[in-house]
Amino acid sequence: NNQFDPTEHPHRRFNPLLGESVLVSPHRAKRPWQGQEESVDHEVKPAYDENCFLCKGNTRINGEVNPDYEGTFVFTNDFAALREDVPKASKRDPLFSMQTERGTARVICFSPDHSKTLPELSISEITNVVDTWQQQCAELSQTYRWVQVFENKGAVMGCSNPHPHGQIWAQHQLPSLVERKHVNLQKYTQQHGSNLLLDYAKREVELDERVVCVNDDWLVVVPYWAAWPFETLLLPRFSITRMTDLTASQQASLAEVIKQITVKYDNLFQCSFAYSMGWHGAPYDDQDDSFWQLHGQFFPPLLRSATVKKFMVGYEMMAEAQRDITPEQAATILKQQSLMHYKEVK
Amino acid sequence: NNQFDPTEHPHRRFNPLLGESVLVSPHRAKRPWQGQEESVDHEVKPAYDENCFLCKGNTRINGEVNPDYEGTFVFTNDFAALREDVPKASKRDPLFSMQTERGTARVICFSPDHSKTLPELSISEITNVVDTWQQQCAELSQTYRWVQVFENKGAVMGCSNPHPHGQIWAQHQLPSLVERKHVNLQKYTQQHGSNLLLDYAKREVELDERVVCVNDDWLVVVPYWAAWPFETLLLPRFSITRMTDLTASQQASLAEVIKQITVKYDNLFQCSFAYSMGWHGAPYDDQDDSFWQLHGQFFPPLLRSATVKKFMVGYEMMAEAQRDITPEQAATILKQQSLMHYKEVK
Ligand SMILES: O=P(O)(O)O[C@H]1O[C@H](CO)[C@@H](O)[C@H](O)[C@H]1O
Ligand SMILES: O=P(O)(O)O[C@H]1O[C@H](CO)[C@@H](O)[C@H](O)[C@H]1O
Repeated sequence: NNQFDPTEHPHRRFNPLLGESVLVSPHRAKRPWQGQEESVDHEVKPAYDENCFLCKGNTRINGEVNPDYEGTFVFTNDFAALREDVPKASKRDPLFSMQTERGTARVICFSPDHSKTLPELSISEITNVVDTWQQQCAELSQTYRWVQVFENKGAVMGCSNPHPHGQIWAQHQLPSLVERKHVNLQKYTQQHGSNLLLDYAKREVELDERVVCVNDDWLVVVPYWAAWPFETLLLPRFSITRMTDLTASQQASLAEVIKQITVKYDNLFQCSFAYSMGWHGAPYDDQDDSFWQLHGQFFPPLLRSATVKKFMVGYEMMAEAQRDITPEQAATILKQQSLMHYKEVK
Repeated sequence: NNQFDPTEHPHRRFNPLLGESVLVSPHRAKRPWQGQEESVDHEVKPAYDENCFLCKGNTRINGEVNPDYEGTFVFTNDFAALREDVPKASKRDPLFSMQTERGTARVICFSPDHSKTLPELSISEITNVVDTWQQQCAELSQTYRWVQVFENKGAVMGCSNPHPHGQIWAQHQLPSLVERKHVNLQKYTQQHGSNLLLDYAKREVELDERVVCVNDDWLVVVPYWAAWPFETLLLPRFSITRMTDLTASQQASLAEVIKQITVKYDNLFQCSFAYSMGWHGAPYDDQDDSFWQLHGQFFPPLLRSATVKKFMVGYEMMAEAQRDITPEQAATILKQQSLMHYKEVK
């Protein structure tokens, strides 16, 4: 067989955002799995849990009492990795270089209902989450250049509380991965005179091989260079550099695709589908940022079932990311999933 | 308090090998952990297991029978992520760029004894493992430009068989992380006229703040820029660009420090300490490679105990690696560990 077949032949695909490749070894999906299995939590949770630090009216570890909130609730992380009271210090040395960083870290409860996750909230409740992200970015960008909105969902993703919540970390310096994107996005615009992610969204819609969900404003694709088995990229179909520029109708259409992709994720293995999700957009400074485009990313670890995940170890830690099924196969499987959450099917 | 204290104040340290930073948030180690706990395998294993694909005389999944080996045994992975029979193909497009890759993947059994792991082998048995790595690199470098030697140890690191073994993947193209190191090592030599890792090893010996093990030839440090809680870097104290250049006495002294660091790892939480370990050196080509220096890396996931690991998720996946305890604290803790394996203490 002399003909290249992406579902049979190992190949490397290039991620133009990070400037690195991923090794695709599709034939490898056939190997049997005898390794570690994750546990699945099928426990039905109560709408209120008296032992939960995020439920309303409960006392947190530092003694503060949560308000009787409706919708979303934001507070400063009791164990923030970034804080404001840090002296300025730095060391410039080619081998031992450091600088202190100031910032803050907040927790955002998506709903007072302890038993729900993002895909189980209504579109208007998710719109409220998007609106809270936007308000937080607007507020924090007064002080900080970078605001990282993200969610860790599921115990396998280091999330220690099933109450639906995400995080927002803000800081002055650009984190390493963001810095790399910044450089690559800028280079593309210099070379092609257009916006990388806007060009990419258009071509993915035309090709229609990796598109999972789409509406007038937004697009969810398994990117051509996806590293995680069911990784997706959430792209706007219009120019928008930052979260803070969303209009009310774009918030609502965004909530719609977030609901769609997260419902499909849960339906895939009939479980609460774990992932890390987060948002990137132009830094909050006065530089030219037309090469940026707001986008969301979902990095889910599961590979074959609710209990078998992909391990990014060994070769992946030393050399480069490696995936088994192709992005096109993953997109086809996700596309086939129903838009009705499996828990609602009677 | 206006004085910078690395054990109290968040700061970013720069990794000159990869050209990226890690966020150190030492005060965060104080937060309680209520999330997922790993299971610990304290089962005493037999020296021979009839269901193990790696034990001698057993039949593997593809029908091949393992020989009655002593010492090490190498075979081609039955589900190799890289293989030779791949047609050449490539696509050059700024957004959809790919090329096929050819290679091979082998498994190396470190010992016929199913019940042992690297730290429980004798120094002469480990020397034999090092010698096998060297022979494999010598053989595979005839065909391939890159030979990645590594070991995934422990179920939490995706290892599906406790039989002591590692892997060797070989390929024509340089993997992404290696490419980045290549560029950064070269840049350092151009700027400073010396070798980055040789300079670094000398300064770490002088500073003696992060050194865990040392002998005349080798040094194990928690690097200044370590991302994983107990990450270590294994450095030669002499010039050597590649694994294939090791002398017999350097093999033996290397086996000695490998034994020391892996025994200390097991003693730290009194368990078989999981990690991914691997080797980087100059690519096998005819280019000038004097800026390279052979080195080993250990990336272990555990943070607080045998059951609580560090999750590299959310902020880490979107922004940059983040650690809690400082590298100096980690080095001090590792240094304090005994050189006698806890299973041998009666
Ligand atoms: O080759 P194994 O042991 O079956 O698989 C393990 O190591 C590989 C190389 O690091 C990874 O790609 C896999 O995700 C991991 O489960
Ligand atoms: O902040 P949490 O939920 O306690 O902690 C979790 O998310 C953080 C940010 O992604 C990570 O640094 C931690 O390793 C993870 O366990």
